[in-house]
Amino acid sequence: MDVGCGTGILSIFCAQVGAGKVYAIEASNMAKLAMKIVKENNYQNIIEVIHNKVEDVILSDDKKVDIIVSEWMGFYLLHEGMLDSVLTARDMFLKEDGVIFPETAAIFVAPCSVPSLYEQWENVHGVSMTTFAKLLRESKHSKPEITILQPQHLIGTEVTMCWIDLRWDKVSDLDSFSVQHVVGANKTGLYQGISIWFSCNFPHLDKDSNEAPVILDTSPFNLPTHWKQTVIILPKEQHVEEGEPIAFKVDMTRDEVSSRRYTLQVSLLDPHEVEHPLPCSCHLTKCILIKTFMQQHPEKEENMELTSEEINSDLDE
Amino acid sequence: MDVGCGTGILSIFCAQVGAGKVYAIEASNMAKLAMKIVKENNYQNIIEVIHNKVEDVILSDDKKVDIIVSEWMGFYLLHEGMLDSVLTARDMFLKEDGVIFPETAAIFVAPCSVPSLYEQWENVHGVSMTTFAKLLRESKHSKPEITILQPQHLIGTEVTMCWIDLRWDKVSDLDSFSVQHVVGANKTGLYQGISIWFSCNFPHLDKDSNEAPVILDTSPFNLPTHWKQTVIILPKEQHVEEGEPIAFKVDMTRDEVSSRRYTLQVSLLDPHEVEHPLPCSCHLTKCILIKTFMQQHPEKEENMELTSEEINSDLDE
Repeated sequence: MDVGCGTGILSIFCAQVGAGKVYAIEASNMAKLAMKIVKENNYQNIIEVIHNKVEDVILSDDKKVDIIVSEWMGFYLLHEGMLDSVLTARDMFLKEDGVIFPETAAIFVAPCSVPSLYEQWENVHGVSMTTFAKLLRESKHSKPEITILQPQHLIGTEVTMCWIDLRWDKVSDLDSFSVQHVVGANKTGLYQGISIWFSCNFPHLDKDSNEAPVILDTSPFNLPTHWKQTVIILPKEQHVEEGEPIAFKVDMTRDEVSSRRYTLQVSLLDPHEVEHPLPCSCHLTKCILIKTFMQQHPEKEENMELTSEEINSDLDE
Repeated sequence: MDVGCGTGILSIFCAQVGAGKVYAIEASNMAKLAMKIVKENNYQNIIEVIHNKVEDVILSDDKKVDIIVSEWMGFYLLHEGMLDSVLTARDMFLKEDGVIFPETAAIFVAPCSVPSLYEQWENVHGVSMTTFAKLLRESKHSKPEITILQPQHLIGTEVTMCWIDLRWDKVSDLDSFSVQHVVGANKTGLYQGISIWFSCNFPHLDKDSNEAPVILDTSPFNLPTHWKQTVIILPKEQHVEEGEPIAFKVDMTRDEVSSRRYTLQVSLLDPHEVEHPLPCSCHLTKCILIKTFMQQHPEKEENMELTSEEINSDLDE
């Protein structure tokens, strides 16, 4: 079953690699186009396009499918996404031992610079246009910026915001996500935004094979995709030294009115007032000491015996 | 005077190269931004930003300027263009011996292929999507397509549609343009559209210098600009042989209601029912004979003695 088949292209890929039968579900009028494209490629005997919301589909003989495929991912993974529909399709139509493509997904966040809204305007063929850049940024206070970042624009190692498992998660598990983090700046530079990207993992069906699992990775470390990265622009930039702690909280909350939309909120925190992770990459003395301690006592880390009281008492010794 | 100064960047370029005084005219609220950017670059003593339509501007002491600069060009040159305002500014503010940047402009048209709406959809990772391409083209019947063409997409040599001289032309000279032409296809290929582009020439102030004149050329033979090229998509493609005559008429008419807009019309003509140019690049026997005759009798071509009756009678001899 192809959930949200659009032009039908994924369904045709499935038929081409040997699917015996494909149900291509599409709620919008694109379904009519999909039917024509299926016919153009001569797969009308394998692919059945169903013009309906997947929630309203009824398959004859209470049929179940072995595999669900879906390209449901939106900007920062969840924007205008169809994930709810995919999970519903799983509950309604996937066999017990069925497989979903993709199987899991994760969202990552990292502090970053945004030169397209800052540095690029400092010298435009010899003209200084920072006033224009400021106006541009102000116009972006209520919407994230979809843009392509390079690795050098990240000023701290990313943290995983959430992990979604399409095999088990319920729709209610997706109502809100949150991460609070402290990271040491990886360079002296300008902290101008929080960048968000995602990756998706595909099932590794042949566990004996040596092939690497297939991962769709939309991070700045890979070639850009149409998803690019999503950046929440800070109202004011902050100059940071290498190692300086950057503390923030990111919340994604499902909109009450329009459940396919999420509200993104970034809170800038005082690194001296929040807990730091163990270990922490920042340069505060306590964090450097803890990191050193943990490197010297790997067995304690593994046994989950480590608490910051223990570390403090060990250090006192 | 910078007509339609926008962010003020052209005015700042002028001040940087030594202008004693610049009037930067901007009708929209962008004028406020221009004032700030002028100040950011410390040229407020040279550049005076005037927030007004140029038609309503009054300069003290009935002042005139030596030079008018303006970036007024829109898609296919005239779309939503400010050319009328530039000519009006010339009449109101330019000294008798003043200079305009750019000074002249020309529009060119040529028959072309449009692979982004045809060939690209024949094989999308092994899937045939020509039905989708057809729908795409149908959605474009009332608007031209703004796209980047490569030289190999042109299937005939371009013809000049019109030539505009900003030193002399009147606003009424711009009410309509028209070209009717026959060209021999320069390759065997697919005739899918009529492409339109423009070039602008800048005044060559130092006639003794060996520097080539500066030309802004938005043809497919140059690096793309944000103007790209404008293509009118034909409702149906036509397969043409090399040398086959392609006959068309292009009309650009100023919209009666909204005078900054033009209506573009392409008429496909029967090459056997319209006059061909002298010489003509197509492969019809009469055109080949005429072209050969003209090559053998260059003096007649120069003296404008050549008419098709003469050629026919010479050929009869």
